[in-house]
Amino acid sequence: MNIKTLNSVIYFGEEGWSFLNKSILKSNYTKLFVLVDSNTNNHCLPYFKSNVDFDFNLIVIKEGEKNKNIDTCNEIWKFLTNNGADRKSLMINLGGGVVTDIGGFTASVFKRGIDFINIPTSLLCMVDASVGGKTGIDFNLIKNQLGVFKEPVFTILDAFFLKTLNEREYKSGYSEMLKHGLIAEEKYFFKISSFIKREHVSHHIKKSLEIKSKIVKKDMNEFGFRKILNFGHTLGHAIETYFLLKDPKNALLHGEAISIGMVLESFLSTKYCGFNETDALLIKKTFSNIFPKIEFDKKSINEILNIVKHDKKNLDNNLNFVLLTKIGNSIWDVNVSEKSVLKSFEYYDS
Amino acid sequence: MNIKTLNSVIYFGEEGWSFLNKSILKSNYTKLFVLVDSNTNNHCLPYFKSNVDFDFNLIVIKEGEKNKNIDTCNEIWKFLTNNGADRKSLMINLGGGVVTDIGGFTASVFKRGIDFINIPTSLLCMVDASVGGKTGIDFNLIKNQLGVFKEPVFTILDAFFLKTLNEREYKSGYSEMLKHGLIAEEKYFFKISSFIKREHVSHHIKKSLEIKSKIVKKDMNEFGFRKILNFGHTLGHAIETYFLLKDPKNALLHGEAISIGMVLESFLSTKYCGFNETDALLIKKTFSNIFPKIEFDKKSINEILNIVKHDKKNLDNNLNFVLLTKIGNSIWDVNVSEKSVLKSFEYYDS
Repeated sequence: MNIKTLNSVIYFGEEGWSFLNKSILKSNYTKLFVLVDSNTNNHCLPYFKSNVDFDFNLIVIKEGEKNKNIDTCNEIWKFLTNNGADRKSLMINLGGGVVTDIGGFTASVFKRGIDFINIPTSLLCMVDASVGGKTGIDFNLIKNQLGVFKEPVFTILDAFFLKTLNEREYKSGYSEMLKHGLIAEEKYFFKISSFIKREHVSHHIKKSLEIKSKIVKKDMNEFGFRKILNFGHTLGHAIETYFLLKDPKNALLHGEAISIGMVLESFLSTKYCGFNETDALLIKKTFSNIFPKIEFDKKSINEILNIVKHDKKNLDNNLNFVLLTKIGNSIWDVNVSEKSVLKSFEYYDS
Repeated sequence: MNIKTLNSVIYFGEEGWSFLNKSILKSNYTKLFVLVDSNTNNHCLPYFKSNVDFDFNLIVIKEGEKNKNIDTCNEIWKFLTNNGADRKSLMINLGGGVVTDIGGFTASVFKRGIDFINIPTSLLCMVDASVGGKTGIDFNLIKNQLGVFKEPVFTILDAFFLKTLNEREYKSGYSEMLKHGLIAEEKYFFKISSFIKREHVSHHIKKSLEIKSKIVKKDMNEFGFRKILNFGHTLGHAIETYFLLKDPKNALLHGEAISIGMVLESFLSTKYCGFNETDALLIKKTFSNIFPKIEFDKKSINEILNIVKHDKKNLDNNLNFVLLTKIGNSIWDVNVSEKSVLKSFEYYDS
């Protein structure tokens, strides 16, 4: 079984590795490059090697969002250049979102675009970054400020890699799965709203990918409908950035930050879209069962608001939000006042 | 009259400016940016201003191929970020190939792609860079090593700007026009093979664009047929790079370098594709009437050969060439020996 996205395919487990080996064998790629970060170099590369029957050049970058920047791109492009990469070379990205984002971007721009394959190793990357063709890097402190839309040739999704994650990382990805239910499929949300352990999650990952893929197919370049995937992200992204700037060592994971964003934006949904207050409370409870509560003081909330105003999804300095009308249905481009945002933090805290 | 390319349109003179003003008026662009280099800032911006009825943010970069690099991109992206550019901003590139290449690239990558408009001011850029959607920058001494394929929303072509060029620059562009004839239309080649002054060239520019546009439409991503546009470029690019590295102040212009490349590759065509020797001599004479002869010693030829091997169009270290079968007809991916290349330099010198 596989999932077809707009211009690409996701293969699962065994079938994925066999397809990869066959593809390389019959292709005319001149050189193969595998991109990992210091983490996946240790924990994922051995398993990767045990599954593939070809040689490759290894590129190792430093792990972490703080290295998803233009300097790391320069290192990758230099490595490709110095190791004879040409237009018919292939790049395989083995890692979490940082690796697939920066790997997809550097490949898409090298010699005006070489092929790349993604092998996500984190749950977040499996259910989020592996569908939708978003590649990119941070620039000048702004997340994903540079990038292109480009899908990999194909993606391999192997639940084995979930074993390499710690509990926080696993939960971070789980948060995006809950989001898919909230914005587009009520039934799915209730199926997974009681936390499911990684041993039993694989079937639900597929469903999550199907939901996301369906959304992206309707609007690849994010002119409208696709924006619903940003539910929880307007405030969530800003919260993530705030904690990263404040103290990189104690930063929140992406899914942790957007879980807070989803609680805040559920509250805004009750104020702007007639979203049911009981459902908003249910969402708050669902996330508080999984994630520890974070304290926000007045100063931090103001700084977060300033970051929101710089967010790329906010055209012309309006505060634009994706909000829920009910569980499983969402709308985008809702204009929200600063005052309501402040109130949403009180709601989260209560 | 306008020319439709694959996903874009080229408007001429008066009609172009009027279309630009109307487009801006009815668009919902949040911010307008105009990119110039230090040259076009002085010589072209005043005329641009006299034709447009909107305000804009001006970005000035240093002129010259040596600044078509990632550092200049970083400056542009910082300027956009610091001046509130968002996904609905527009960038207008006013300049020669360096400005449209780097402007198209930085716009295509900023927030995963914002709209851009090209207004070429050199003849080279009008007949070459303004069709085909190639954007890019040099990296690690390799020309156009980074970039994407993306066409502007539209292009304005105004022959007024030809007045701002010196004679060398004008002739550099003329060289590409001759190339279009050589690779695809015999009649056109003979129409312009006796050098035409800029006052009378405007009709021939349109024809040149039509030829290029027809070629690109068949093969936007350069999988095959489009490669014929690289006639003269395998050696020409390398010659250009060689002189740039040797002494940037005495570098050759692009068209000067590829005019030599075309003479060399016409000779190779007689050896590999049965190209008529009399026609090869005619081509040599055509170019020697326009461009001064350049001296090459043994050492320089060897260095040029090394650069050819690094050229992005050469897959897996073969020496691949576009060659002529007759004037107006060309084929691509012809494998040529190093020895023949050395002989072609003797032919040029004779």
